[in-house]
Amino acid sequence: MSVGLLVVGSIALDSVATPFGETADAPGGSAVFFSAAGVILHPVQVVGVIGTDYPPGALRALEARGVDLSGVERAQGESFRWKAKYSYDLSSRETLETRLGVFAEFRPKLPAKFRDARYVFLGNIDPELQLGVLDQVKHPELVACDTMNYWIHSKRDLLLELLRHIDILMVNDSEARELSGDWNIYRAARWILARGPRLTVVKQGEHGALLVSAEATFKVPAYPLQEVFDPTGAGDAFAGGFMGYLASTGDLSDASLRRAMVYGAALGSFAVEAFGVEGLADVTLADVRARVRAFRDLVHFDMDEANRA
Amino acid sequence: MSVGLLVVGSIALDSVATPFGETADAPGGSAVFFSAAGVILHPVQVVGVIGTDYPPGALRALEARGVDLSGVERAQGESFRWKAKYSYDLSSRETLETRLGVFAEFRPKLPAKFRDARYVFLGNIDPELQLGVLDQVKHPELVACDTMNYWIHSKRDLLLELLRHIDILMVNDSEARELSGDWNIYRAARWILARGPRLTVVKQGEHGALLVSAEATFKVPAYPLQEVFDPTGAGDAFAGGFMGYLASTGDLSDASLRRAMVYGAALGSFAVEAFGVEGLADVTLADVRARVRAFRDLVHFDMDEANRA
Repeated sequence: MSVGLLVVGSIALDSVATPFGETADAPGGSAVFFSAAGVILHPVQVVGVIGTDYPPGALRALEARGVDLSGVERAQGESFRWKAKYSYDLSSRETLETRLGVFAEFRPKLPAKFRDARYVFLGNIDPELQLGVLDQVKHPELVACDTMNYWIHSKRDLLLELLRHIDILMVNDSEARELSGDWNIYRAARWILARGPRLTVVKQGEHGALLVSAEATFKVPAYPLQEVFDPTGAGDAFAGGFMGYLASTGDLSDASLRRAMVYGAALGSFAVEAFGVEGLADVTLADVRARVRAFRDLVHFDMDEANRA
Repeated sequence: MSVGLLVVGSIALDSVATPFGETADAPGGSAVFFSAAGVILHPVQVVGVIGTDYPPGALRALEARGVDLSGVERAQGESFRWKAKYSYDLSSRETLETRLGVFAEFRPKLPAKFRDARYVFLGNIDPELQLGVLDQVKHPELVACDTMNYWIHSKRDLLLELLRHIDILMVNDSEARELSGDWNIYRAARWILARGPRLTVVKQGEHGALLVSAEATFKVPAYPLQEVFDPTGAGDAFAGGFMGYLASTGDLSDASLRRAMVYGAALGSFAVEAFGVEGLADVTLADVRARVRAFRDLVHFDMDEANRA
């Protein structure tokens, strides 16, 4: 029996403008990007909430691929909406509007069958709710967690409590810096390790991602794309690829974690090649594997004769 | 007989302040950082100019390691001085003063024995002078060239002429973007390839460096340093390691170019671990090789069984 892979996070309607086009009320949010990426590698169980206005069928494509939406609650009220605009070179974005809607009162409840999940990804929500989700999972083997600057500032104590209960903190570089108070990203990663997790994953956008443990540091660059259309969701797609790969293999060795980083980077690269989750809609396992091989070609070098240890 | 490796560039007196300390009138400049790094791998010939005030003996340590300074002219007047201050996190710097002194009238003249050099690095000087140097080299096998935004704007035509005569343009990411007018770094690198060079090397500071040819893209990250003291000269030390490795092997295959990128990144990492060229003063070939092995550990991953092509 395959191990359960659970994600808890936002299910949103995104309106995003980039220099290359825009979307209006398109499916988005951390749980959506995570599961659209992860399901290419392993079945995914989603816990989240949508409003009465969420377009019926908007998530049907995910379901068809193997995403179990039985943990998605439909609540009275408006769906979570997020509106943002990217700069001309996609290097920065401005949030124009955030309407939490039913997400404001979200109290994640896991269906009975989800409580057996072994691999858990806690998307960026209130750390109090993240802790509440963990309480509902019976025997988690690997718990990864995202957060954001808002929680780092407003709920620091709860976030530090959470760190004692998770295996991997997966944050972007500015979050790692703010949480630790250290601008050096390697010291920041080690500061986090000292608070509980055995792995820190730092997402660095166009510069790839970093895996830091007590024993090793591993770096995967971003895939060299000549065309990037929409960076939204890349970090959650990365997390989906990372966790999906690990769940599919059940192997948590150093070698497997390194590969998981590359699968994450591959999924992140597919995510940014189109608007919203569309970039992931038609990606096959064969496509992902081909891109993982391309990553190997991107970074691989042989030692010279004189320097074989 | 070993092939000659020639560098033409600035020989300066740097006064640099970082949050961790400062230097005053310390040896610096592109030719100094290049040769301090390159000579660890291969003898280096330097062409440059110093003023009558340049401290006698300031370059003696380089000479002792195998740097041939017979192309360094001592001219009447003041030496090139550069004064800069870095931000708290070293991510940006402000140039406080640039006094060209004798560098303003520098017209590189190669000693007869330097004209046989096979590997040539044209440090960041006026493209007209870079072309003048090339005219003096009899049979160059590999010519790499740096430049800066100032020349991109003020001498664009000469720079484009130069591109038709060199093998490698080695610039940082903002320079590649300004030269090509394209913010996407991979398209910018290809724009450069279309103008003559067969390789573009993009230096990305704390994010490593990128090698782009018509056939392949190779990325080396920066070495994960928990302590960086002074980023000055990292790019020239990178160039010295890159060219020094190639000159020492005489191998310009794809596999060797990839290794050269890693040797460059290794030398860049040593350069930033101390102030000025000091970080390179005691580095041995064994140290460099050990760091190259550490780079391999940083980026290496094995393909999974299912994905061996």
